Amino acid sequence: MSSEAGLGKNVLITGASRGIGLTFIQHLESQQCRRLDVQDDISIKFAAEEVQKILGDEPLNLLINNAGIFEIDSGVTMENPNRATFLRHFDVNAVSYAIVTSVFLPLLLKAASLNQRALVVNISSFMASIEIGKLPPEDLGCSVVYGMSKAAQNRYTRVFGKKYVEEGIIAIAINPGSVSTEMNPKGNVSADDSIADMLRTFAKLKKEDAALFIDRFGKPMPF
Amino acid sequence: MSSEAGLGKNVLITGASRGIGLTFIQHLESQQCRRLDVQDDISIKFAAEEVQKILGDEPLNLLINNAGIFEIDSGVTMENPNRATFLRHFDVNAVSYAIVTSVFLPLLLKAASLNQRALVVNISSFMASIEIGKLPPEDLGCSVVYGMSKAAQNRYTRVFGKKYVEEGIIAIAINPGSVSTEMNPKGNVSADDSIADMLRTFAKLKKEDAALFIDRFGKPMPF
Repeated sequence: MSSEAGLGKNVLITGASRGIGLTFIQHLESQQCRRLDVQDDISIKFAAEEVQKILGDEPLNLLINNAGIFEIDSGVTMENPNRATFLRHFDVNAVSYAIVTSVFLPLLLKAASLNQRALVVNISSFMASIEIGKLPPEDLGCSVVYGMSKAAQNRYTRVFGKKYVEEGIIAIAINPGSVSTEMNPKGNVSADDSIADMLRTFAKLKKEDAALFIDRFGKPMPF
Repeated sequence: MSSEAGLGKNVLITGASRGIGLTFIQHLESQQCRRLDVQDDISIKFAAEEVQKILGDEPLNLLINNAGIFEIDSGVTMENPNRATFLRHFDVNAVSYAIVTSVFLPLLLKAASLNQRALVVNISSFMASIEIGKLPPEDLGCSVVYGMSKAAQNRYTRVFGKKYVEEGIIAIAINPGSVSTEMNPKGNVSADDSIADMLRTFAKLKKEDAALFIDRFGKPMPF
């Protein structure tokens, strides 16, 4: 996508093999797709080197941290938690965001230093909101830890966003809406509509939006 | 401590070998101390059986989830995250709270069904607050993931608190203040003062306080 759209030229998306991530790729008409295992630090480092080679002298303009898991049918509930399942959700949905962002930080800082767009978009969820504190629907296993991992991710976005806005990077957490995907068959928004709304919002992001949790139209949500 | 103090008779505290937990024990003049490794599910199950034997027909009135880690000198920062260190913080500071609470839930429900006090107190931190989003002091390694793990814990308290207030359990997250302990040598409140304030607050907790994040005087804090 061209820089005219307010996104800059070079975009990296994690978790692009299906769901929201795949639809992002389609909307952005990206030519460059690689697989990246966000739970594997070696894979992340390797991807960073590859991205660096592809970009050459150019910076990275937009990092979309999208890879996530929600093990709906695991049988895990508040009354029946499982340590391994919990930790897996934290690992993919929160820790990986922090590690991927740190690895690509130099390329984002490069964009900022060139006065180009430098955005970090962390795909969050309404279930991240502690304030709303919505109880998990009884038929969704793992929604407790999913919400916990997404709240942790919002906490990360908040501090990263506040620190790096000073360096010219705008980082936000965004709720894509309840998008109808394989992971969420009951969603009420199509991936196409959600991504189109989000891309319009990304293009309009300003410094003042840094470190916020927003919906796909750009409206702030309560933490 | 007697039930006159509004806490009920039987209290369980995790992480009581030092710091805040140890001071709680001293204030409560507890006779019964056992070690419990909150990262070890077998140890938790064994503790639950032991507690059941000690209590006999009596219920559990107050569970204080206090065990926590903050690996200040790990060298971990936002720019230099470490997956294992991050996951260890989530494991102890968030996942363990959920598992310990689930294991002792039947004994707490028993208290509620007998119209006795049934409290779950999750020791949180001002660093849990996403809204405040305070940047970590530069000299504190791991404060990013510490805050993330505590935000996740608050998310847990919120949904547990909302669900189980219907069953007569009051669950809250509390910020003890910046308590001067081994883990936090720069704290500005003594453990004695903080615990005395918290115990007074616990004794006054009402149904309406369930699922809140409060300071040690009982005042709600932003998530």
